Amino acid sequence: MDFNNLRINGKRLRETIETSAGIGATPNKGLIRCAATPEDKIGRDLLLKWYKEAGCEVTIDEMGNMFAVRPGKNRELGAVLTGSHFDTQKPGGRFDGILGVLGALEVMRTIQENNIELERDFIITNWTNEEGGWFAPACMGSGVWAGNHSKEWAYERKDRDGKTVFGEELEKIGYKGTFPCSYKEWNIYAAYELHIEQGPQLEQAGIQIGAPKGILCLHWYDVYLEGTANQVGPTPMVGRNDALLAASEMNIVVNKVAHQMGNMVGTVGEIQNYPNSRNIIPSKVHFTVDIRSWDDEHAVKAWKMMKKEFEVIAERRGCPIRTEEFWKVAHAPFDQELNDRVVESAEALGLSAMKMYSGAGHDMSEVNQVTRGAMIFVPSIDGRSHVEVEETPYEDCENGVNVLLQCVLKTADEV
Amino acid sequence: MDFNNLRINGKRLRETIETSAGIGATPNKGLIRCAATPEDKIGRDLLLKWYKEAGCEVTIDEMGNMFAVRPGKNRELGAVLTGSHFDTQKPGGRFDGILGVLGALEVMRTIQENNIELERDFIITNWTNEEGGWFAPACMGSGVWAGNHSKEWAYERKDRDGKTVFGEELEKIGYKGTFPCSYKEWNIYAAYELHIEQGPQLEQAGIQIGAPKGILCLHWYDVYLEGTANQVGPTPMVGRNDALLAASEMNIVVNKVAHQMGNMVGTVGEIQNYPNSRNIIPSKVHFTVDIRSWDDEHAVKAWKMMKKEFEVIAERRGCPIRTEEFWKVAHAPFDQELNDRVVESAEALGLSAMKMYSGAGHDMSEVNQVTRGAMIFVPSIDGRSHVEVEETPYEDCENGVNVLLQCVLKTADEV
Repeated sequence: MDFNNLRINGKRLRETIETSAGIGATPNKGLIRCAATPEDKIGRDLLLKWYKEAGCEVTIDEMGNMFAVRPGKNRELGAVLTGSHFDTQKPGGRFDGILGVLGALEVMRTIQENNIELERDFIITNWTNEEGGWFAPACMGSGVWAGNHSKEWAYERKDRDGKTVFGEELEKIGYKGTFPCSYKEWNIYAAYELHIEQGPQLEQAGIQIGAPKGILCLHWYDVYLEGTANQVGPTPMVGRNDALLAASEMNIVVNKVAHQMGNMVGTVGEIQNYPNSRNIIPSKVHFTVDIRSWDDEHAVKAWKMMKKEFEVIAERRGCPIRTEEFWKVAHAPFDQELNDRVVESAEALGLSAMKMYSGAGHDMSEVNQVTRGAMIFVPSIDGRSHVEVEETPYEDCENGVNVLLQCVLKTADEV
Repeated sequence: MDFNNLRINGKRLRETIETSAGIGATPNKGLIRCAATPEDKIGRDLLLKWYKEAGCEVTIDEMGNMFAVRPGKNRELGAVLTGSHFDTQKPGGRFDGILGVLGALEVMRTIQENNIELERDFIITNWTNEEGGWFAPACMGSGVWAGNHSKEWAYERKDRDGKTVFGEELEKIGYKGTFPCSYKEWNIYAAYELHIEQGPQLEQAGIQIGAPKGILCLHWYDVYLEGTANQVGPTPMVGRNDALLAASEMNIVVNKVAHQMGNMVGTVGEIQNYPNSRNIIPSKVHFTVDIRSWDDEHAVKAWKMMKKEFEVIAERRGCPIRTEEFWKVAHAPFDQELNDRVVESAEALGLSAMKMYSGAGHDMSEVNQVTRGAMIFVPSIDGRSHVEVEETPYEDCENGVNVLLQCVLKTADEV
C-alpha cells in the first residue's frame, strides 16, 4: 500500500469532535470539562470505548494518563506516540487539546481499517489535566510522566476553591490507574502533538500548517510598588505617591520595550491595587510581567531594560519598588528532524506550511524533555483560544490530522 | 468678662482626646470605631456623660445624632451649633471627626466653667456615621438631618458584609432616639465645624489655621474598556487589544490633564481587570476617575479633555470604551462672613491663618445646605488621614479649639 495516498476520514473526524463537544457543553458553543470532574469521566469513558473499538490495548497510569497501543511488528523498537489532552479551561473551546486527542484517534482508526502493520508500536494518548483549569498547575499528567513532579505532590493539589484534592477526585471518577506514571516505563522513539495554534499567525499569513521549532522561553516576574494612601480631595497633584499611576507608566514601558526589541512578547496580565477605593490614592500595587522569546538572552536583556526604567519611574513617583522572578522556563527546541518532517509531510499533501514558534506551553513541552518531539499547528480563527468562541474550520482540522497521519506512518516504519 | 482673653484648657482637651483614643484602639495607635457598633456605643455613652457634666440638655434624634444644648438668654434667637463626628474609618485615626466633637465639648466646658451666659443657645453635636466606614454612605446622620435622605432609607443600609442593617444596629446600641431627625426641628443661626485638614497644605505652608471657603466640587466617572482575551504567548504584540494597557495610558492622561489645567485634582483610585491572569491579555477593565475643583466648569472641561484623549487611545488600541457619570456634587461655598470670622479670630489669637478649599466632604457639606456654615482646619502631619498614623500635634489641636471658642462666643452674642 502506498502510504502517501492514505487519507483520514474527515467526516468521521468531524462527527467525533462534535460528539466530544456535547460533553460539558456550555450555552455559547464552548466546553467546561476540567480534569478529574464528572464531565472528564464521561469524556474518558467514551475515549476508552473508542480506543477499544479501534483495537487498542489501553493502559491507564497513576495520573490517569491514557495510552492506547497498536502493537508493531517489532516490539523491541521504540514506539511512536501522539496525543494531547481532553480536558478544557473553565470555560474553554471545543478544539484546544481535543483536536490532538481525537486526531490521534482518527489516525489510529485509519491505520486499523486499512489493516496497516507498522514496524513500531503506535500509541495514542490523553494526558491528564494539561489545562490546570480547576486543579493547577498545567501539564500535570505529562509533567509527572516526564519526571518533573512527583505523583504524590500532584495528588495533593487543591482545586481553585481549595475544597478538594486532585488525587481523591481522580480516584472518584475511576481514572487513578495502577500502572506507574513515568516515561521510564515506556520505550518511545518519537512523539508528535497536533494542536490548534492559539494565536493568529497562520490565519494572518494564510498558511494551513504550522511547524513550531519549539516553545518560547517563559519568564515571569512580579512587581510590587508602595505608594501613600492619602485622600484624593485634599491632596494636591504635586507630591503624591500614586502607586497605580507608577504601575500604569510601567505597563507602557513593558509594551514599548517588547515592541522595540522585537522577536518577543511582553505583557502585564494581572494587577492588584490597594485600597482600590475611588477616593483614596493607591498605596500598594502588585502587577505581573510575562516575557517570552525564542532567545532567552534577549528576554533577559528586555527585562533588564524594563527594570531600569521601572526604577526611574519608582524614584520619580516616590513609590519604592520591589521585583521578584517568579518562574523561568528556558526556550525548548523540538527535534529538528521531526520538525522538518511536519513541513515535508504538509507539502507532500499540497498544503502550505511554515516554521514558527509556539508561544504557549503544551504537553509536548514535557514529553520533548524525555524523547524526541515535534508539534503540528492548525489555524485558530482570530487567534482565539481558552474561550468559548475558539474555532478552527473542520477543513483545517482534517488537514492537520492528515499531516499527523503521514508523520506517524513515516516515523513508525523507520527501522 | 473680656471674651478675647478667654482660652480653652489645652491639657484637658488632650486628656479627653486620649481617653477617646482608648475606645476602639488598634495596636498601631489608630482607631476602629464605626457607627452603630459596640465601640460606637462605648464612645457615645462617654460623650453623653461628658455632655451632662457640662450642664447640657441632651437630645438624641432618630438617626442617633446627639445634640447637647446650653440655653442662651434669648431662646427665640437661632442657636450656634458646632460639632463633627465621633465615628472612624475601619481603621482610621484619633483625630478625624473626633477633634471637632471633643473640641466642641471643650468649648462648652470653658463656657460653663466661666459661667458665661450667651445671648443665643449654644449646641454641640455628634453627627452619626460621617465616615460610612461600615455602613455606607458617608454623612448619613447629617444627610438625613439636612433632608437629603429619608431616615427609612438610611435604616435599610447594609454593612460592608451585607449581613446587618443600620437601623437595627443603631437600635441595638441604644441610640435610635425618638426626636425627629430634621433641621426643621431646630432654629440654627450659624454652624461651625473644626476638623483636621486631611491634606498637606497647611503643614507645607507652615500655617496654623485653615479657613476653607467651601468644599470642592466632586465629579465621579466610571470607564469601561473591552479588549480581546488572547493567550499571551502565541499573540504577537502587533494587533493585540490589551484593555489594561489602554487603561494605563488613560491613567496617565488623567494625571497629565489635572496637572496642565491646575486648580484641580484628578485621580484613578480604583481598577478592576479581567480575567486578571498572568498569561491572558486583559479583555475587560473598569476604572474610576475622581475630579475635584473649586470651579465646576473647570472640572467639566477637564473631563471633556480626558474623554477626548481616552477615545483616541481606545480607537488606537482597538478597545471599545464606555464612560458613565456616577456622581456629581457641585462645589459648596461656606458662609463668607463666618469664613472671614475664622481668619479674624485666628489672627486675633496671634495665629497664622489662610483661606483654602476643602477637598473632602464633611458633615458641614450637609449642614451648610440648610443654615450658614463654616469650617476651621488644623494641620495634618504629612497630610495623612483615614489611616492609623493620622496625627495632628496637640498644640495645633488647642489652637483650633481656641479659634472655635472665639468664633462661637462672637456669633452666639450677636443679636
